[in-house]
Amino acid sequence: MTKGPSADPGVIDLLGLLAYAELGSFFRLADDAGLAPSLRTRGQLAGLAATEQNHYQALRERLVELGVDPEEAMEPFVGPLDLWHERTEPQSWLESLVKTYVGDGIAGDFYRKVAELADADTLALVEDVLAETERAEFLAAQVRSALAENPKLAGRLSLWARRLVGEALSQAQAVAVDRPELASLLAGRGPRGGDPGDSGLDDLAAVSRMFASLTEGHAERLNAMGLAD
Amino acid sequence: MTKGPSADPGVIDLLGLLAYAELGSFFRLADDAGLAPSLRTRGQLAGLAATEQNHYQALRERLVELGVDPEEAMEPFVGPLDLWHERTEPQSWLESLVKTYVGDGIAGDFYRKVAELADADTLALVEDVLAETERAEFLAAQVRSALAENPKLAGRLSLWARRLVGEALSQAQAVAVDRPELASLLAGRGPRGGDPGDSGLDDLAAVSRMFASLTEGHAERLNAMGLAD
Repeated sequence: MTKGPSADPGVIDLLGLLAYAELGSFFRLADDAGLAPSLRTRGQLAGLAATEQNHYQALRERLVELGVDPEEAMEPFVGPLDLWHERTEPQSWLESLVKTYVGDGIAGDFYRKVAELADADTLALVEDVLAETERAEFLAAQVRSALAENPKLAGRLSLWARRLVGEALSQAQAVAVDRPELASLLAGRGPRGGDPGDSGLDDLAAVSRMFASLTEGHAERLNAMGLAD
Repeated sequence: MTKGPSADPGVIDLLGLLAYAELGSFFRLADDAGLAPSLRTRGQLAGLAATEQNHYQALRERLVELGVDPEEAMEPFVGPLDLWHERTEPQSWLESLVKTYVGDGIAGDFYRKVAELADADTLALVEDVLAETERAEFLAAQVRSALAENPKLAGRLSLWARRLVGEALSQAQAVAVDRPELASLLAGRGPRGGDPGDSGLDDLAAVSRMFASLTEGHAERLNAMGLAD
């Protein structure tokens, strides 16, 4: 493994963000399982949560390899991600399914975009992590079957899905402001040299466009669950 | 894999009990992580929880292999195990550490005893599951270091550990009464033929002795944490 390019502060931020996002998802999935209607579904959620823990572990190990304190790298993202979870606490089993499906989907799209921008080692790791995803199809199927039984739920759940994305974009923008190196990486300008204030506004605009492009996949996912945009 | 001996009702009960015990531990560990003092410790707990999920998965798959509905096999043990968790809800991080360490320890000892009594396939599976345990040493180390800082905690935590075992034995006895085939297996009499009422009392006594023997390992674990019996 080469250390040079990966030790870029933007990449470290990125790995810290992804690592804590996975750890946070692990705990949320485990927590939401209390809403699950059956023992089987609780077991399936535990399986999804364990996958998130594996991803967390892989990302954390990469940070250790890079000679970085992994908890320090995650720390800046604990607040924004916890806040997202607090502001989008599911009140029902269906809301929790939609949240997991939408959240995993956004995370997957984000990983893919980012993999194009980072160095080869980070890209390989992100691809490994992604290869294990897509296990969440049973979530979409459960939402579809609940909607088939009770089509009136669709309106409320569509609003819920919109709120999930809105809150995610809002937290993401806050992170982009706080972490200029990460914003620069996400803006596709690679590791930043020079003054950290350089082109900050351009980066923020580019990051916004990048986030906007993530919502394309979101429409597909709504469709997969039988929800409207 | 031979199906004959493993499809014994006592073995199915046993696998169902272990599977739900692992799933329950998964959720408890994830839940208790809210009490953890640091991001690093939360991550470590997530790792322990993911291990429990792996065990659950292996045990559930074995039930499926045996042609049994795995959720039906677990169902009789949901009540007693959930009740144990409810009656032993940790009020602090240290209580949660002691509970995890003591609970994993009892479970490990129980698996070992049981492996001696079941068929070869079940034994192989239980050994696989056990090979992955013993990752909980960091829990004992954390308790020891907390006690080194504040020796006054020892008395209260020792009482807590005693209560954990007492409540576990009480639930275990209730299960043994409800599930005669399992009791018979645990009593070391192998698959029961004849009337399910046969020797029921003898079995219960043998099961009590078996449980009593589990408390030997408990004394060692208390010692490892720096607690008195």
